[in-house]
Formats: sequence, C-alpha cells, structure tokens
Amino acid sequence: MSGPDAPYSPGLEGVIATATSISYRDVDHEQIVVRGYDLIELARRLDYPQVAYLVIYGHLPSADELAVFEQALRDQAEPPEAVLRMLELMPRAAEVMDAQRTAISALAGFEAPDELRDTTPDSNARKGVRLLARMPAITANAYRILRGLPTQRPDPALGFAERFLQMITGRRPDPQAARIFDMTLTCYVEHELPNSTFAARVIASTLSDLYGAVAGAAASLKGPLHGGANEAVARMLLDILERGGASIAEAYVMERLARKERIMGFGHRVYMRRYDPRAYLLKDAIPELADRRPEGPELYRIYQIVERVMLREKGLYPNTDYPVGLIYYLLDIPIELDTPIFLAARTPGLVAHVIEQHAHNRIFRPRVLYQGPRGLRPAEEGAPA
Amino acid sequence: MSGPDAPYSPGLEGVIATATSISYRDVDHEQIVVRGYDLIELARRLDYPQVAYLVIYGHLPSADELAVFEQALRDQAEPPEAVLRMLELMPRAAEVMDAQRTAISALAGFEAPDELRDTTPDSNARKGVRLLARMPAITANAYRILRGLPTQRPDPALGFAERFLQMITGRRPDPQAARIFDMTLTCYVEHELPNSTFAARVIASTLSDLYGAVAGAAASLKGPLHGGANEAVARMLLDILERGGASIAEAYVMERLARKERIMGFGHRVYMRRYDPRAYLLKDAIPELADRRPEGPELYRIYQIVERVMLREKGLYPNTDYPVGLIYYLLDIPIELDTPIFLAARTPGLVAHVIEQHAHNRIFRPRVLYQGPRGLRPAEEGAPA
Repeated sequence: MSGPDAPYSPGLEGVIATATSISYRDVDHEQIVVRGYDLIELARRLDYPQVAYLVIYGHLPSADELAVFEQALRDQAEPPEAVLRMLELMPRAAEVMDAQRTAISALAGFEAPDELRDTTPDSNARKGVRLLARMPAITANAYRILRGLPTQRPDPALGFAERFLQMITGRRPDPQAARIFDMTLTCYVEHELPNSTFAARVIASTLSDLYGAVAGAAASLKGPLHGGANEAVARMLLDILERGGASIAEAYVMERLARKERIMGFGHRVYMRRYDPRAYLLKDAIPELADRRPEGPELYRIYQIVERVMLREKGLYPNTDYPVGLIYYLLDIPIELDTPIFLAARTPGLVAHVIEQHAHNRIFRPRVLYQGPRGLRPAEEGAPA
Repeated sequence: MSGPDAPYSPGLEGVIATATSISYRDVDHEQIVVRGYDLIELARRLDYPQVAYLVIYGHLPSADELAVFEQALRDQAEPPEAVLRMLELMPRAAEVMDAQRTAISALAGFEAPDELRDTTPDSNARKGVRLLARMPAITANAYRILRGLPTQRPDPALGFAERFLQMITGRRPDPQAARIFDMTLTCYVEHELPNSTFAARVIASTLSDLYGAVAGAAASLKGPLHGGANEAVARMLLDILERGGASIAEAYVMERLARKERIMGFGHRVYMRRYDPRAYLLKDAIPELADRRPEGPELYRIYQIVERVMLREKGLYPNTDYPVGLIYYLLDIPIELDTPIFLAARTPGLVAHVIEQHAHNRIFRPRVLYQGPRGLRPAEEGAPA
C-alpha cells in the first residue's frame, strides 16, 4: 500500500481506474470505440435497440436475438403502477431528474429479493433490460406527473425511440423525428468512464445491486458539470434569442467570457481541443429540423455564431450536449427532460459496466491526502466553553 | 494527461483520490483522526450530536452552538408525510436499505429549488442538518412500514440517540441502551474515504446536490462488501447459535474457511492486520449488554470463539461491524436495520465531504485500460446474420 505517499491527481485526471472491454475513447484517432465498433458508424447505420444490445451483451444481435430483445423491451415497458403513484406524491416544484432517480431507486423494491441480490451477468442483464424497457415510461411520466399532465402508457406497436418520444410529446412522432431522436439516444448510449459511469462502478464494487448503481449514476448526471449541460445549452440559446437573437449572439458570448462565466456544451477534458465525434454527427441534423419550430432558423443562426466565437476565443469545439440541446428543443422536448433522456439512453452502458464490475470485482477504496489538524483533545468537560 | 499509459491499481488501492481536512485513518499510530481529534476519545467522552457538529462544522460546538444544533435536530426530525406515504407504496418484500435510499432521493424534491441547487457550505450544512434530523424517523419508519408495524413519530423530549432507538423499538430506551447506541453512532460518524464516502464525493463533483450524493452513498453502503457486513455478522452468530452454539463455533468457522468462504466483520483493507480501534472500544459494551436477551451470554461466547479462531487461522482482527452486529441484536434492533443505521450515523461525514468537495471542486473523471476488440465494422445490412 503506497497510501499517503502516492502521487495525487485531483479529480483522478489521467488515472486508470478500471480495466474494461466495453468502450474506449481513442483521442488520437478521434474515435469512440464501443465493443470494438466506431460509435459514429453504429449511430449512422444501426438503430438504438441494436446498439443497446451490443453494449449490454458484447456482440451485435442476430435477427432472432434482436427480435427477442425488442419483444422484451415492449413487454416490460410498463413500470409498476405503484412507482407512478410514488411520483405523484412528490412536490410539483421537484426536478424531473430527482423524480426519475427516485423511481429507479424504488424499482429495486419491486424485484424478487433473490433476483435483486444476484450479481451474475445473466441476472444483471435481465434486470438491466427490464430497467431499460421501463425507462421511457418512467422518464416521460416523471415529467408529466410533476407538471400536472396526463400520464402516457407505452405503445407496444412502436419502436423504442418512437415509443419514448410519443410518451414525451403525447403524439406519435413522424419518421424524421423518430430517426433523429433514435440517433441521439445511440450517441448517448456509452462513453467509457464519465463521472456517472464511474459512480455506478464505484457503487457496484461493494456488490450492491444494479438499481443502486444506476440511481447513483442518475445523481451524478444531474450535476451541471455533467449531464446538466444539454439543458444549459438549450436555455442559453433561448436566452440569446430573447435578448435580441443572432445579432447579439457574439456580444453575449464575449460578455460571458469576459466575466469568466462558463459556456456550457464546449470542450471536454478528454477530447481536449478536438471535435467530439458525436457532436460532429449530430450537428447535421439541426438544419434538417430547424423549420419545425418558428424560431428554429434563428436559433440555428445563434447556434452557429456561438460555436464560431467559442472556437475563435477559446479554441474549444462543441461536445455532444451542444447539438443535442437544440435538437431536443426542435423536437418539442421540454428542456427539463434533456438530462433525464440522457440517463435513459445511457442505461445500456451503465448496465454493461455493472455487469463487468460484478464479474471482475475489486472494491474501490482509495486513500486521501490529509491536510487537517492533528493531536487535538476535547476539554475535560466535554465541549469547550 | 498520462491517460492509458498511467499505472493501473485495481480498486484504486493505494491511490490518493482527494485532499481532505475531515478525517484520516492513521494506520501507523492506530488512530482515526476526525477534525484533528482521536475518534475513540470523542466516542468515550462526548455524545453523538457533539461529534456530528464537529464533523459538519469543523470545530467542537460551544454550549450555545450545541443547543442551537440539538434544537435544529429536534425541530426538523419529522420527515414530510408524503415521503412516508411513498414508502407505503413499496412492496413489503423490499429491503429497508432500498426504502431508505428511495426516501433520501425523494427528499431532494421537498427542498426549495434554489436551496437544493445551492452548493455553498452554508446551504449544504443547512440541508445536511435537515437530512440528519430526519434520518432516524426515515430509517425507523422505512422498516416499520415495510414490516406492517405502526409508524413512530420523533419525540422532541428525547436526545438524538434515544429518539432514534425509541422509534426503532417502539419503547423509550433505558440510559444504558441509549448510551451504548449513541457510542455506536459516533463510531460510525466518519471514517476517511470508504467506498460510500468516495461515491458521495464522485457524485458531488459534478456539482450535483447533497441528496443525490447521500443516496449514492446509501446505494454503496448496501453492498455486502461494505455496510452489509454488520448484518452478516449478526446473522452468522445466530446461525451458529441455532446449529449448536458455542460448542460448534470453532468447527463452523473452520469449515467455512476450508470452503474459502468469507467471514464477515474481520479484516479491513486499510487496517490490514491490526485491530480496528472502534471494534476495540465497542467490544467492552458486549458483556455489559449480554444479559439483556436470554441467548445473549451464549452469543457472547460464540463471538469470542469466532474472534479467536479468525486471529489464529487468518491473523485477522475484528472491524467495527463485528461488535456492532451483536450489540444491535442485544439492543433488540432488527438485524435488517443494522446497515440503514450505519448510513444514518454516517450522514454527518457524508455531509462534510459534500461540503468540502463543492468548496474545492474538481470533477472525478479517470480513464480506463481498454482490453476489448478494435476495428470491427457492422455488416452492410445492419445486424449480422
């Protein structure tokens, strides 16, 4: 044990925390490798359930395997009624992320105790598919319940992305919307070891169960330095629109930068000063969608200006959150659902990491660099005067 | 960024993950340093609210500060009624830890949105004290609701440990029980960077809120390699009692060891082959309490035999979970509450770590050692045949 004499890297930057066969962000080749495949190629050519299967099981599904998987996603799409009733008890001012995380946590209680505790790959995959199947209804209805809208039931006649979008907006999506939404889900499906995935592995390493690990990931993803960024992007673009539109976009960014404020959706510790390949793929969807809302074309102009100014001033390229924030707005998705959708889409990745952690476990238990006092003693009377 | 070329230590063993001024496990001096004090001396001389204050605020309370703190713990002891109603919707077969974690997650929704998002030390301390105040009622009633027992309301006339124990057992504890229970809470209050505290800091480092961080810690603590150990100890001692008592205890342990099974409550990655000082303090309480249950003296004999055999065969000393498992049983605490009580007692430590993480933040974002395939391509048709 090197303990307190070991080198200290704040935020564990550059530290290898685990071995994995799930995915790898190859910065040199600008590629996100998922189970051996280029994620961008997967997003271009396959749909989300195919990629979700790949992430969870480690290989692309045969036609039969895919049919069974999609059937499972359909058959288990309905969460227990009691979970929705729990969400009805949350205050209306609560955030959707808090309701979604609470529902995931509660779902643990609806598993048979032996299945819940079972840490074998088979059981984790079963629980993981069940959770993924339910995630759209939980996510969409967490929003609907908090905002006083009627809940929606999952439509088994629709594909996964269509079903999800239908429950969010309350209407059946057209093929363009379904296709682009599906592609955003694939872009979010798995991404090596971001904070949320790391949190899930840390939790799973006590041999705690999958629901606790995913609830912990949801807690992590909520933070504005992580999943919260896509919401922040949408809010910023709308803020610029409201304050004057494209004509003030450059001044808006310059002012924020002068005040040393953070512009969300740009840069990434790992990609550094390169383009996030997911952002590169998704940006092409924006002009396709821009005419779907009256303010769409102006938002797209603002989007382009902010991107240009950030590159010129800070040398920073957009990350995925940047195009997704605008795409989801153009798809009529309420902004407060952006991060909860990210979590739902990331579920296969989290499930795969829990499976892998449980199968090759070593509990995470690092040390600290202690900088506090030593040798103090309480006064004889108990508390000091 | 050293990235994939950095050395890899599974479980981050020996890796420094954060700087801290909260606590330090000084293995060389066999001391748990909490805010500069020896935890064992604190447990011997002060009561839990005094130590909880020290952990959260960084200094021992004056008489006035302590009075205000205890008043806050009393005044905010009652959780929102809606949270208890949420727990009523969980299946009766659910584990108490799952219900407790769900309640903590839900409590986020009952904070005002601005207060919830506020990451300043003042706001985190306010939320933390509120959560600590409610933890006894949430913990005891999670158990009571799942097991179909009447819920208990917190009695403002009692001290923190008394109030907690009263809600668990349904009767006012005598001074001996209250004193020893209080001492166990202090032993659990803070312990450097165990997996659960690490999980809380990882989550908080996205600037996510305190409730999410504590919910993540609860998820971690549930695992049998972590907080679940105190429950496992109690179940093992009772299992030995049932199979024949002290006369078969040695054979029981030898058989388990021969089958390479893990005996819970012994050894600790950081203490290695030394006595956990908390276990050393707490073991003296067992003979005091042994006569409180008819089977107590026999359980104490079994306890001593298992301890002796583990030292002889494996060179391992007990950790805190070993005496606590038996102490809680002798105090008529249902075994399934052992880990939830550990979490409740650890709340001040978790709050302190969230305060510290938010005040000196760097997002945790380590890298991986990728061992999977590369360069695969999906077949032209989509999924391969």
